[in-house]
Amino acid sequence: MNPLYTLNVELGDRSYPIHIGSGLLGNAGVFEPHVKNKAVMVCTNTTVGPLYLEKVSNTLRAAGASKVMAVTLPDGEEYKDWPTLQLVFDALMQNHCDRKTVLLALGGGVIGDMGGFAASAFMRGIPFIQVPTTLLSQVDSSVGGKTGINHPLGKNMIGAFYQPQMVVTDISTLNTLPDRELSCGLAEIIKHGAIADVDYLADVEKSMPQLLARDPETLARVVKRSCEIKADVVSKDEREGGLRAILNFGHTFGHAIEAGMGYGQWYHGEAVGCGMVVAAEVCRRMGRLSANDTNRLKTIIIAARLPAIPPKLGVDKFMELMAHDKKADSGSIKYVLLNGLGSSSTSPVDDALVRQTLQELGA
Amino acid sequence: MNPLYTLNVELGDRSYPIHIGSGLLGNAGVFEPHVKNKAVMVCTNTTVGPLYLEKVSNTLRAAGASKVMAVTLPDGEEYKDWPTLQLVFDALMQNHCDRKTVLLALGGGVIGDMGGFAASAFMRGIPFIQVPTTLLSQVDSSVGGKTGINHPLGKNMIGAFYQPQMVVTDISTLNTLPDRELSCGLAEIIKHGAIADVDYLADVEKSMPQLLARDPETLARVVKRSCEIKADVVSKDEREGGLRAILNFGHTFGHAIEAGMGYGQWYHGEAVGCGMVVAAEVCRRMGRLSANDTNRLKTIIIAARLPAIPPKLGVDKFMELMAHDKKADSGSIKYVLLNGLGSSSTSPVDDALVRQTLQELGA
Repeated sequence: MNPLYTLNVELGDRSYPIHIGSGLLGNAGVFEPHVKNKAVMVCTNTTVGPLYLEKVSNTLRAAGASKVMAVTLPDGEEYKDWPTLQLVFDALMQNHCDRKTVLLALGGGVIGDMGGFAASAFMRGIPFIQVPTTLLSQVDSSVGGKTGINHPLGKNMIGAFYQPQMVVTDISTLNTLPDRELSCGLAEIIKHGAIADVDYLADVEKSMPQLLARDPETLARVVKRSCEIKADVVSKDEREGGLRAILNFGHTFGHAIEAGMGYGQWYHGEAVGCGMVVAAEVCRRMGRLSANDTNRLKTIIIAARLPAIPPKLGVDKFMELMAHDKKADSGSIKYVLLNGLGSSSTSPVDDALVRQTLQELGA
Repeated sequence: MNPLYTLNVELGDRSYPIHIGSGLLGNAGVFEPHVKNKAVMVCTNTTVGPLYLEKVSNTLRAAGASKVMAVTLPDGEEYKDWPTLQLVFDALMQNHCDRKTVLLALGGGVIGDMGGFAASAFMRGIPFIQVPTTLLSQVDSSVGGKTGINHPLGKNMIGAFYQPQMVVTDISTLNTLPDRELSCGLAEIIKHGAIADVDYLADVEKSMPQLLARDPETLARVVKRSCEIKADVVSKDEREGGLRAILNFGHTFGHAIEAGMGYGQWYHGEAVGCGMVVAAEVCRRMGRLSANDTNRLKTIIIAARLPAIPPKLGVDKFMELMAHDKKADSGSIKYVLLNGLGSSSTSPVDDALVRQTLQELGA
């Protein structure tokens, strides 16, 4: 059984493949090049572990791993912290792991971020394999090498840029994904089309029923194209110097929604979906996006079962939360703006215009 | 006032200069290129802070830093842990630092390692300046980019390879260094000569009285040459694939002494000094080092006021501790061996020969 797609993320000597297909968790051949004769520590959580840990462990053994170990973390963004990360280091130390031990992250974005940071830091770096099991992590955090944990005063404040040796994306894992999380993945997928590829956006628009019905071939095609777009941006700007900022389309408003509502109330993808609607409305008022295109993007977001109306935080609160966001470099907020659908760039925006937009949208 | 020496550590786009001289802590010109119009967080400890923090802060302001902040950690290897590192992250967060904030580590090896790791991890990497104030950190940890903290079950197990933007080595800070720590720096200096440059070893041998008397010009010359040697090795093997292992000459035995005696009883440099004597004796028994050269190296180590007789841990305990050392890759211990003075390579050694050597030295 071969992957449906294999995509290479080009980062010089840190390049790595992403294998995308159905049933890859049972495919020893995919894992063999990176685990044969090696000890593997699987890092998963209490939700994903019961579903897939045994299967993955058996596959790793069939692929020739010399030893398969596991550490199961509690599930949830609230555990993306140092005490929980320490459980991974404890497991590595107690099992006498060394620099050749492979760390495999089996789970969604939180597990990928924590597993990646643990791999980057244990003995200053051990091999890392990512097996994302949510649509969001398959199209977003599995490309780009951002890893990390939260600080009590801010999200993702402590981490590393660390690339995996391989990403294995098994579309079948999406069959167990809650609807709300499927929609969150779709938010990032829509974003990729909006910022970089209007044809892709049209494909997503047209394929929305199949995507919501979790048709494996449609999902695989879309995951592949989203990874390509993100990989293209990341390979030009690995450490987030400039271009990579366009991936934050919808995120400035989205982060404010997440923080303002209290983390966990709105999911990240929901906040980003709504944030894109707000951002598009800003673009429309700036004459960068037609009324038609603005409505089209909003309709796609709603079709993905994402919220399009911002919560009533109050405009002042919204502005204050955005100013605190870490993307606010040296004072002025840089927004990601569309120049028509499928093209984007960053720019400051007049505060009054942002305030007016938020006001009119009922924020 | 110019530095006496400026040395460039060649690591492609991660290259950086080391400035070496007397009185550099008061030299705004040296700091200006990296701190002008930037916020700087100085990370120091309760021993070094009272001596030099005010001076450095004034210099940074004179160099045009937009804001100078400080976080003072408790002093000692026992604080090289996560809760203490967290104090640095807390200070960075509470002061609303961003990606452009410069972290400056002012202190010895522990401060350099922790400050460097904090800089590598805060927002996935902020600019880092190292100001080493001990001889050991000036010749050792300021070159190579190894940063990190200890895990309860092992030293330096959690960290990153992260290069500073600049190292400022002020020889004057050695005037306040305790004698025992001066000797620890000399251990690594002797090691550099022994593994890579017999002429340098001869210079150190001849200059020992001036070094012990802390003559600034002699110290600066020796710090420079030691940094050159280490930089040469590191630039050929940044992430410790192979060659870099020769820098561990004396360390396999040294780590066993440190661990066996309880950390803090023997200082690292003392254990390495003694470890080099044991390693040289192993080399002599293998026919790699003449009796004359073995005695010469031992005499230099003793002249540096370092211990040459291993503690009575018992041979079995010694062997067990070495097997647990992280340099023991996949089972067999690789020793760093001299091929005459000034040349080195790594190789396994017959256990019986190591045991016999330890036995005869009274370990």
